[in-house]
Amino acid sequence: MNSNNSLKHELLKKIEKNDVKICVLGLGYVGLPLAVAFAKKGIKVLGFDVDQNKVAKVNDGDCYIRDIDPEAFRGVVQKGNLSATSDRKALGSCDAFFICVPTPLDKFKKPDMRYIEQAAIDIGKTMKQGVFISLESTTYPTTTETFLKPILEKESGYKEGFDFFLCFSPERVDPGNKQYNTENTPKVVGPLGKEAEEIARSLYGKIVQSLHFVSSPRAAEMVKILENTYRLVNISLINELALLSGKMDINIWEVIEAAKTKPFGFQAFYPGPGIGGHCIPLDPFYLEYIAKGFNFDLSMIEAAGRINNLQPYRMMNKISYALNRYSKPLRGSTILFLGIAYKPDIDDARESPALQVMHEVEKKGAKVLYYDPYIPEVIDDYGREWKSVELNDQLLKKVDCVVFTTNHSCFDVDHIVNTAQLVVDLRNAVKQVHIEDDKVFKL
Amino acid sequence: MNSNNSLKHELLKKIEKNDVKICVLGLGYVGLPLAVAFAKKGIKVLGFDVDQNKVAKVNDGDCYIRDIDPEAFRGVVQKGNLSATSDRKALGSCDAFFICVPTPLDKFKKPDMRYIEQAAIDIGKTMKQGVFISLESTTYPTTTETFLKPILEKESGYKEGFDFFLCFSPERVDPGNKQYNTENTPKVVGPLGKEAEEIARSLYGKIVQSLHFVSSPRAAEMVKILENTYRLVNISLINELALLSGKMDINIWEVIEAAKTKPFGFQAFYPGPGIGGHCIPLDPFYLEYIAKGFNFDLSMIEAAGRINNLQPYRMMNKISYALNRYSKPLRGSTILFLGIAYKPDIDDARESPALQVMHEVEKKGAKVLYYDPYIPEVIDDYGREWKSVELNDQLLKKVDCVVFTTNHSCFDVDHIVNTAQLVVDLRNAVKQVHIEDDKVFKL
Repeated sequence: MNSNNSLKHELLKKIEKNDVKICVLGLGYVGLPLAVAFAKKGIKVLGFDVDQNKVAKVNDGDCYIRDIDPEAFRGVVQKGNLSATSDRKALGSCDAFFICVPTPLDKFKKPDMRYIEQAAIDIGKTMKQGVFISLESTTYPTTTETFLKPILEKESGYKEGFDFFLCFSPERVDPGNKQYNTENTPKVVGPLGKEAEEIARSLYGKIVQSLHFVSSPRAAEMVKILENTYRLVNISLINELALLSGKMDINIWEVIEAAKTKPFGFQAFYPGPGIGGHCIPLDPFYLEYIAKGFNFDLSMIEAAGRINNLQPYRMMNKISYALNRYSKPLRGSTILFLGIAYKPDIDDARESPALQVMHEVEKKGAKVLYYDPYIPEVIDDYGREWKSVELNDQLLKKVDCVVFTTNHSCFDVDHIVNTAQLVVDLRNAVKQVHIEDDKVFKL
Repeated sequence: MNSNNSLKHELLKKIEKNDVKICVLGLGYVGLPLAVAFAKKGIKVLGFDVDQNKVAKVNDGDCYIRDIDPEAFRGVVQKGNLSATSDRKALGSCDAFFICVPTPLDKFKKPDMRYIEQAAIDIGKTMKQGVFISLESTTYPTTTETFLKPILEKESGYKEGFDFFLCFSPERVDPGNKQYNTENTPKVVGPLGKEAEEIARSLYGKIVQSLHFVSSPRAAEMVKILENTYRLVNISLINELALLSGKMDINIWEVIEAAKTKPFGFQAFYPGPGIGGHCIPLDPFYLEYIAKGFNFDLSMIEAAGRINNLQPYRMMNKISYALNRYSKPLRGSTILFLGIAYKPDIDDARESPALQVMHEVEKKGAKVLYYDPYIPEVIDDYGREWKSVELNDQLLKKVDCVVFTTNHSCFDVDHIVNTAQLVVDLRNAVKQVHIEDDKVFKL
C-alpha cells in the first residue's frame, strides 16, 4: 500500500508542476482536441496514431479537425508542447495515457475491440510503474474492468491500483458545437479506486472546468451509452412519427415547433433521412451486445434499430414517388444530393444517412451526384469513391431531382428550389411548403 | 361570408367587453382550473358536469383540485363569476364552449369517445348561432375535424366556419407543478379557419400569457400526442435500462445524475414501478389507434407499451425475490406499499402503477396494505376498495416488506428503513444503498 501511495504522490507532484508527460492515443475528433487542450496548458503531449498522414500533419502544425482553432494548434506545435509519432516505443516515457481510439461495430453490429486491445498492448508493453491510464473511447459497460485492465496487467506485469491507475471517462465531443468544447463541457469520470480518482481530478482538472465522479468505470461507461441511446431512441421516434404525419397531412416540423413551447418535460428532436455520425448509430448497440450476455433484450433499442435500418429505403421511396408523379422511374434519372455530412455545417460523413440513400438509389439504376462544400470527396462503406460536383444553375436545371440530405446553412434554398425541376426535402429546408406541392416533396 | 364575419365581430366585441359567457364542460383537473382562470378575469363561467357531487362542491365554493388556490376559488364563486350545473339546457345561453371531458381508453386500448360525443351532442342541441367551441381533451389527430365537427353540425343544423367557430387547443396541465399553471404555460391552438383563430386569440389571450398557433386542429392534436409519446418512450427506455443496470451492478440513478451534467442534448427521466397518470399511459395509444387506420405501425410506442405491460410483474418479482432472500414466499407475507399516487406530492392515483403492483401481489396470496397521506381511500380498476392504513413503528416492524412506490417528500425514509424488516425501493428513496444490501433492494 505504501508503494502505490508513493507512486501516486510522485505523479501528483509532476502534474502540479506541469511536468507530467501525456500521451494521447488516437488523433481523431476526440483525441486531437484533448491533446491540444493539455498542450495549451504548457504540458508536453505526445500524440500517437498508426495513421502516418495524421502524425505528419500534427508535426507540421497542420490542423485537420475543424473544431480546433488552427492558430492555437500551430502555436502548441511550434512551442514543442505537441508532437506526434507512430513509434510505439515512444510511449514508454509517458506518465499518463488517454486512449481515444475508434470503437466501431462490425457488419454484424458487434463491437470491434481491436483498437482498444492494440492500444492496451502498446501501453502495457512499454509503460513504466506509476502511470495513469484513462479510456475515453465509447464502449460497452464493464470494458475497462474486464477487457482493458487484464490486457494492461498481462502485458506490463504490473498490477492495477498498485503499479498503475485506471479510469474510464467518456468523451462528449460534439462536432460543430460552437458553445461547448473540451474545456467547458462537464466531464464524467469513473475511476477504479481512490488513487485513480485523485489523479484524474488533478489531471483532468487542468483542462476541464467541471468534473463529475461516479463510483466505477462501468457506471461512467453506461453514462455515455445512456446519453446516446436517448438520442437514438428519440430520433427514431420522430422519424417514425414524421412518416405517419405525412400520411395524415400533418407537417411534423410545425408540430415539433409547437411542442417546443412547452416549458417543461419536452426536448425537440427532428426527423431526417436517418441517423449518422460516429456515436448515435453505434453506441446503443454496444449496450445491446453486452445485454445479450445477461440474457437481456433491449426492446427500445431494437425497435429504434429497425426504424433506422429501414430509413434509407423509405427515403429512396420518397424520391421514387416524387419522380413517379412526373412519370419518371429511378432508372435513368439523374439525382443530385445536396449535403452528405451527417449534420449541418460539419465536414464529417461518417455513417452519414445521405451515403446510404445514394447507394440504394444508385443500385436502382439512377445516376447519382452529390454536392457538399465541406466534403470534396468520400469513400462510402461499400468502397465506392464519390466526388462532389460543382453546383451551378445549369446542373440544377438539368437533373431530374434535387434531394436535400443535409441542411448546410450556406445553401441558397430558395434559389435551388426555383431553379430545380423537382425537389425532395428530407430536412425541412423548404419552410414554405406544408407537405408537398407540385415541385417540392417533404419527408 | 358577411354572416360569419358579423357573427365573429359580435363575439369579439363581447369578449372585449368581458361580457362573454363561457361554458366549461368537464370539471376535472383540466376544466376546473380553466374555468377559474376565466372567472378570475371577471368573466361569467358556467361549469357543466354530469357528476352532481362536483357541481354541488363548485356551487358551495368547495375546491376539490389541489392545484387551485381555495381562497381564489371561493372568491370567484361568491362573486357569482363561477357556477356549475348538470342541466344540459343551461348550455344554450353560452357564447363559448371549452370541452375538457375525459378521453379514456377501453380495456382493449381503444379510445372511448363517448364523453366527447355527448359533449358535442349537448352543445349542438342547444347552442345559438355564432358561438366558439374549443376542444381541449387529448385525443387522436383528426378528431376535431372528422368526429367533433360533424356531430356539432348535425345536432345544431349550423355550419362550422359560418354559424360557429371551432378549434383544438391541448391542455398542458401538470398536476403538482408549482411553477407552471394555466396562465403561464404557453398554449398551442389549432383553429379551423381565420375567424376561429381571431376569436381564440382574443379569448385565450384573456387568461394565457403566450399563444402559439398551428395551421390546423389536427396539428394541435398531434402536438399533445408528441409531448406525451416523448415521455412514454423515454420513461420506458429508462425502465428497461434500469433492469439491465441492476443485473450489471450499475446504479442507474447515479448514471442519470452524471448524464444530466451534459449541457446539451440530454433530458433526464427516472425509472419507477411503471407509468401512471391520465396522460402518458393513454395518449400514445390514441395515436396508435388512428395510425392503424393508415396501415401504419408505431413500433416505438408498441415497444414502450410492452415494457409497461410487463412492469407490474417485474416489480412483483423484485418483491418476491427480496422476500425469498429470507426464505419467505409472497403467499402469507404482509406487504406495505408506501405512496400510491402516480407521482410525488399529489393526491391522484389514476393509472397509478402502485395499484397494479398491489393487485398482482394480492393475487399471489400476500396480505397487502398501503399508506398514502394524500389518498385516504381509492377504488382500483378491478373494483377493489382500498383504505390507507395509519403509519406507525409497530406496523413498520410487523410487516414482512415495505415497498416505496411513490417518493412523497414527507416520508421519513431513514426512519422507515431503520424500523422495517425489509425494504424494496422502486423510487431511489434510499440514496445510500448502491443496488442492494441486507435490508434494502432497489429497482
